Amino acid sequence: MPYNAMKHRAYVPEKNFMEAALQLAEEAFAAGEVPVGAVVVKDGQIIGRGRNRREAEQNVLGHAEIEAMTDAARTLGTWRLENCTLYVTLEPCPMCAGTAVNAHMARIVYGAEDDVMGACGTAVSVIDLPRAFKPELYRGLLAEECAALLRKFFEQRRK
Amino acid sequence: MPYNAMKHRAYVPEKNFMEAALQLAEEAFAAGEVPVGAVVVKDGQIIGRGRNRREAEQNVLGHAEIEAMTDAARTLGTWRLENCTLYVTLEPCPMCAGTAVNAHMARIVYGAEDDVMGACGTAVSVIDLPRAFKPELYRGLLAEECAALLRKFFEQRRK
Repeated sequence: MPYNAMKHRAYVPEKNFMEAALQLAEEAFAAGEVPVGAVVVKDGQIIGRGRNRREAEQNVLGHAEIEAMTDAARTLGTWRLENCTLYVTLEPCPMCAGTAVNAHMARIVYGAEDDVMGACGTAVSVIDLPRAFKPELYRGLLAEECAALLRKFFEQRRK
Repeated sequence: MPYNAMKHRAYVPEKNFMEAALQLAEEAFAAGEVPVGAVVVKDGQIIGRGRNRREAEQNVLGHAEIEAMTDAARTLGTWRLENCTLYVTLEPCPMCAGTAVNAHMARIVYGAEDDVMGACGTAVSVIDLPRAFKPELYRGLLAEECAALLRKFFEQRRK
C-alpha cells in the first residue's frame, strides 16, 4: 500500500469526543459514582453515551462503557458495532474491553491507565487474542484530565 | 490450618447444577442461539439462571453468564455476588469472566473449554490479575456433554 493511502486510513482520535466522555464522568462524580464516562462514535457522530452508575443501579454492568455500547447498539439496531470507536476516560476493565471485542468495536481510545483492572495492556490484554476480533488501541488522550478527576473522587472519599 | 479443616472448606462442584445449566443451553439451542447456559448458586440454591439470547435481543450482553449474574443480583438486591458460584457450560469469555471478577463471584465452574475466547486460562486469563479479586476455578464438569451440544449446533449451521 502506498504511504499516502496508509496515512489516509490512519485514525486520528479527536479530543472533543474525549471531552464529551469527560463531561459524562463529571456527571458520575456529581452522583457519587466513580467518575468514568464513555461515548461511542461512528462517522464522526456520537451514537452512544454512558457513565458509571453501578451503585445507584446495584448492577455490576453499570460501567460507563457498557452503557455507551448498549446505547449505540440501540441506535444502530444491532449488537455489531462495526466501524465504531469507543472513547472512555479510564482504560477498560476485562468486562468492558471484552464487551468491545464481542461487539466488534473497531477502535478503543482511552484516557487514564488502570493499573489494577486495565485490560488493554496494563493489568492484562484481552484485545489481541490470537483468534478473536482485535480492536485498534489508542492510549492516553487527555490522560491528565481523566486521571485528575478520578484522584479528586478518591481523595474526597478518604476524608 | 489442620488438614481436616482445609478439607472441610474445599468446594466440591455439583453435577446437578451443571445439569441445570445444560438444560438452559438446550433452551438456547431450541431458540437458534449458540447453546450456552449458566446458573448462579448460593448456599446450595440456584439464585440466578441464564442462557444465550444474543441474536434474539441483538444485545452483545446476551450471554448466558451475564443473564444468570444479573438475575442473581436481582435476587440478592446487590451487585456483590459474594459466596456465590457460577456454573456455566462453556468457559467464559473476557466479558463474562470479567463480570464475574467485578461481581466478586467466589467460584467459577465451567464445562467445555473455549480455545478462541476462553478467559479462564485457555485463550487468556482475567481471573487471576495480581491486584484484583480472584474467583476460584473448577474446570471440565460434564465437559463432554457441554461440548457435544455446541458441536451439534455448529454442525447443523454448516449444512
